[in-house]
Amino acid sequence: MNTLITLAPDADAGSLARRLAADGLWTTALRDAAGRVQALAVVPPSPPVDRARLADLPGVLAVLDAAAGHPRVDAAAGATVAVGTTSIGPGAAPVLIAGPCSVESEATAFGAAERAAAAGATVLRGGAFKPRTSPYAFQGAGAEGLAWLRAAADAHGLALVTEVLSERDVGLVAEAADLLQIGSRNMQNFALLKAAGGAGRPLLIKRGFSATLEEWLMAAEHALAAGAPGVILCERGVRGFDDVTRNLLDLSTVALVAHIHRLPVIVDPSHATGRRDLVAPLAAAARAVGAHGVMVETHPDPTQARSDAPQALTRAELAAVAAVVLEGDR
Amino acid sequence: MNTLITLAPDADAGSLARRLAADGLWTTALRDAAGRVQALAVVPPSPPVDRARLADLPGVLAVLDAAAGHPRVDAAAGATVAVGTTSIGPGAAPVLIAGPCSVESEATAFGAAERAAAAGATVLRGGAFKPRTSPYAFQGAGAEGLAWLRAAADAHGLALVTEVLSERDVGLVAEAADLLQIGSRNMQNFALLKAAGGAGRPLLIKRGFSATLEEWLMAAEHALAAGAPGVILCERGVRGFDDVTRNLLDLSTVALVAHIHRLPVIVDPSHATGRRDLVAPLAAAARAVGAHGVMVETHPDPTQARSDAPQALTRAELAAVAAVVLEGDR
Amino acid sequence: MNTLITLAPDADAGSLARRLAADGLWTTALRDAAGRVQALAVVPPSPPVDRARLADLPGVLAVLDAAAGHPRVDAAAGATVAVGTTSIGPGAAPVLIAGPCSVESEATAFGAAERAAAAGATVLRGGAFKPRTSPYAFQGAGAEGLAWLRAAADAHGLALVTEVLSERDVGLVAEAADLLQIGSRNMQNFALLKAAGGAGRPLLIKRGFSATLEEWLMAAEHALAAGAPGVILCERGVRGFDDVTRNLLDLSTVALVAHIHRLPVIVDPSHATGRRDLVAPLAAAARAVGAHGVMVETHPDPTQARSDAPQALTRAELAAVAAVVLEGDR
Amino acid sequence: MNTLITLAPDADAGSLARRLAADGLWTTALRDAAGRVQALAVVPPSPPVDRARLADLPGVLAVLDAAAGHPRVDAAAGATVAVGTTSIGPGAAPVLIAGPCSVESEATAFGAAERAAAAGATVLRGGAFKPRTSPYAFQGAGAEGLAWLRAAADAHGLALVTEVLSERDVGLVAEAADLLQIGSRNMQNFALLKAAGGAGRPLLIKRGFSATLEEWLMAAEHALAAGAPGVILCERGVRGFDDVTRNLLDLSTVALVAHIHRLPVIVDPSHATGRRDLVAPLAAAARAVGAHGVMVETHPDPTQARSDAPQALTRAELAAVAAVVLEGDR
Repeated sequence: MNTLITLAPDADAGSLARRLAADGLWTTALRDAAGRVQALAVVPPSPPVDRARLADLPGVLAVLDAAAGHPRVDAAAGATVAVGTTSIGPGAAPVLIAGPCSVESEATAFGAAERAAAAGATVLRGGAFKPRTSPYAFQGAGAEGLAWLRAAADAHGLALVTEVLSERDVGLVAEAADLLQIGSRNMQNFALLKAAGGAGRPLLIKRGFSATLEEWLMAAEHALAAGAPGVILCERGVRGFDDVTRNLLDLSTVALVAHIHRLPVIVDPSHATGRRDLVAPLAAAARAVGAHGVMVETHPDPTQARSDAPQALTRAELAAVAAVVLEGDR
Repeated sequence: MNTLITLAPDADAGSLARRLAADGLWTTALRDAAGRVQALAVVPPSPPVDRARLADLPGVLAVLDAAAGHPRVDAAAGATVAVGTTSIGPGAAPVLIAGPCSVESEATAFGAAERAAAAGATVLRGGAFKPRTSPYAFQGAGAEGLAWLRAAADAHGLALVTEVLSERDVGLVAEAADLLQIGSRNMQNFALLKAAGGAGRPLLIKRGFSATLEEWLMAAEHALAAGAPGVILCERGVRGFDDVTRNLLDLSTVALVAHIHRLPVIVDPSHATGRRDLVAPLAAAARAVGAHGVMVETHPDPTQARSDAPQALTRAELAAVAAVVLEGDR
Repeated sequence: MNTLITLAPDADAGSLARRLAADGLWTTALRDAAGRVQALAVVPPSPPVDRARLADLPGVLAVLDAAAGHPRVDAAAGATVAVGTTSIGPGAAPVLIAGPCSVESEATAFGAAERAAAAGATVLRGGAFKPRTSPYAFQGAGAEGLAWLRAAADAHGLALVTEVLSERDVGLVAEAADLLQIGSRNMQNFALLKAAGGAGRPLLIKRGFSATLEEWLMAAEHALAAGAPGVILCERGVRGFDDVTRNLLDLSTVALVAHIHRLPVIVDPSHATGRRDLVAPLAAAARAVGAHGVMVETHPDPTQARSDAPQALTRAELAAVAAVVLEGDR
Repeated sequence: MNTLITLAPDADAGSLARRLAADGLWTTALRDAAGRVQALAVVPPSPPVDRARLADLPGVLAVLDAAAGHPRVDAAAGATVAVGTTSIGPGAAPVLIAGPCSVESEATAFGAAERAAAAGATVLRGGAFKPRTSPYAFQGAGAEGLAWLRAAADAHGLALVTEVLSERDVGLVAEAADLLQIGSRNMQNFALLKAAGGAGRPLLIKRGFSATLEEWLMAAEHALAAGAPGVILCERGVRGFDDVTRNLLDLSTVALVAHIHRLPVIVDPSHATGRRDLVAPLAAAARAVGAHGVMVETHPDPTQARSDAPQALTRAELAAVAAVVLEGDR
């Protein structure tokens, strides 16, 4: 339930319900033991309610609501987040974030940064600490990788976002990166959110595999409560039931975050689809629903990539994505 | 598995796998009892494979595939479907389909048609037979409703799409409508697909609540095998886990249908979200991923609507949707 | 929301909420514009509420509820359904239903009936009309198949359940079968529910691939409203995200149906898992949660089966299932 | 794909496929460019394959497989895990684990331990560090809570399981507890798995909200690779689409873990359903599918519980659960 409207004794519940429906509100009539409608519950997926306006409608006794659970998130509505010299969020120019899934060498870092900058990206992405399903897979180049990424970003005038996996690495990562990424698997790793939130850097919080919007916003609240100077949300697809795409990209929720909650939100179509042939159209769609940026994977030599090479864009594909993200081409 | 590549005895499986990855293909190495890699399976979410190209790569012995299950659907790739005097599909101009969820009266039908035509829609939608969760809810105006809709469509130069629920009504509905809608609940009602497919009209097949793309294409194959002159697919959201939107709109699959399968596909953002405040951004996103049209709900007097009034667009909202769909505005 | 409790002006909302929590109710506090708690909404997954008891608690002003949407289903609580000479439901002995996915010949029907009866089954299952994803797959033996099944059931003293796919076949199927099966794909095919509901036979309604319990009960309401003398529900797994099993068997909902709604409910572990090695443990679990019967696949010669052979039990496996279902072995 | 069977030139692919189907294997025929079947892919949900047996079938050239990703997990098949003086796993007596969601005071800890022991539980559960969606909710009593729990467990001869949320608390928790719980939200928190895996205690790994079985086993592999002396898996329901239960309990996967992978696995019906009225039937079902134990919530004074009170069992309800878990009652 979103909101409850209690009715005056003489209220015409049917008329009121029809009027609310015409305003976009789904309601359920609640009856007392005698069968009389005494209240209308506004139920999902109704849009937000203007309490004062509802209170003035004929027949309305009171308008009740559950208290908001994320005051700091709500207070951040409409504001942008500074990432290095770039701003991301409502009102800011759209951003392109590009780079390799993981960085295997200094050459990878510099090659990717060159490619990203050439395409118009303002933020370099790249993993030095990688969450891997297998403990025997490449876990990332670690501290050395961070240094490569920072140097490569600086060489090309880019800001840097990279994932932090462990509370113990927060200091190290915060020193190197402008934006700390919390991965999908850690969206509700509250110890990490607290540690990373206190490191003085803004956070990029990827949505958990099956997180509701409310849970996602609460993850952001954890970060802000811990002192994070800003939070950017990143949709990367939820778990679906069809393997034609890697995940199920939920652009409706991006639209909600961008237009209703007015929080900075970007989209990662590389992980969402796992298919290079779908990245450009979904990047365009991300912009169309109001996302403030798009994050994609590209690798200077994908035959050498040690993770997720199939979804890494070529230089030409990256240029096509940049065109739709930065210039609004279709 | 999509495709299997068997290897020559002297093949360098690691190199080949890296090369395929760089081309966007996810593979799994398959080993014999002695642990030698004898084949690479191309697994989802890989893009379609060009067999001939793969066969020419060094180390490749043979390229094996499962037979395609929907030859008629595959043969329809790239073609548009004629709906009245409009064409829908690859290469055709985008279409706007608009109208009420259900038609309660002649006035509703004419009011909706006027509103749809004024916004630039070329097809009127409206339900005369309604699938209702409750047997006690309004089930639609039936044959009378069909007549109202046809007259209203004709008066405004629109084509007509309406849902058929029963095998017994197929003749009646096919007489009135230019396009027969198969609802989500009936996507795998094979008796209805067969009956409707044989009625001489093209079909609009809405995706089932949790249908995979393959199941959806097979529903289209049923219709084409029964003689349907064309099939248009309509994405309306799959069942999700978060009630902030009514359903979870899967635009990645729309991109796949439009760009890879090259079949006519439209999007219904009204049912997908159930929220008027999200219809315009999602309509824009639908176009951005390549959908050939958008279908939305609008009602001339939503206080009188007997189903789904909260998601019915006002005249101004409809105009905004028309702008993004027909003119590419954002 | 399940139920709303409005509070007296002097109520101690915190105490009341704690007391309700201790009774198993999850509540959300609803506040007026001044921030005072004026109501407690009882939210899912709370158990059913005894209104009269709640109304007597200190501080409670009124207890409001949404009207029940399925009066006929609710009125059927606690009653068994007669299927031939067997009864299925609360209080009746557990039943085993067994037979082939589809019947290809008279020999299949008789072989399966012999095998089912020998194991202790009292109902024969078997498909004469098969819903097939592909229009080119074997669609069932049709009317001839019905005759084989009826004769085989009679020869072994079994009742017969078989699926009806088309409104047009309802009469034919109702003549042959004791129980009409509505498949998962048709759970919300309201035209079929209406036709089958009016045929004078009880219905076995399989749960849709992603149907909520409420939607499932409403499908039963459609059938009862059309005159069905009884409805039995059948859980066969919902769509999941992991392919280690064919579907995701939802035994919690079976427990709800059996213990809280007290309606006849059986479980189909063959379709749920698609794996013979899991059928016996899940049949045992079905009985443990209160299911009134179990339906499984078995085929006298699985090398000749034209659908779903891998999930067909051998004679020995069927005996093991019968032991857990009929005798409570583990 | 599970396994690939390549065919000899003279193989009768149809016969072989039918034979494999009769053995429970689902296969897909793979064809070369000329349309000849050259291989059969064994696809999910097929049971495990005996390579040697397949290799001996007529027409089979070779049997190929993907390498197993979790050798340490596979090596643990069939073994029990020692938790204090109790053993959990295949062949061991079933265990009951009981206690409060969170421990608010010394009295809660001792009251819960007394109640658990009286019911026949051998392990006390209770949270000192709580993962809470809101940063403003009670986060647990921390180190003091651990001391209360340890003392209470000792006073009643119970082992202790409690959750560890932060890498930094691993030492503290490992000192107090016999079994370290990794919560659902942290199932893929690899840094925590590594830290906890190295603490010398066995781990209880709850399944992530939408984790596949393979991902769950890989989490166990991370723990074992880090040195954990044992891992017990705990199913607590995956994210579903229906709010009548809190989560969707997946007992098919429990059956797979218990019978096919033969790893220690328990079930948490309290979190799975969130409803006290369903805990006993689902506990019985958990045992029926082969779970080696059941973990439930109970609180000595639920009106004082600071989390999840509605799902806490009363003393009588706990006794009923103990009867089905420990004695096999239904």
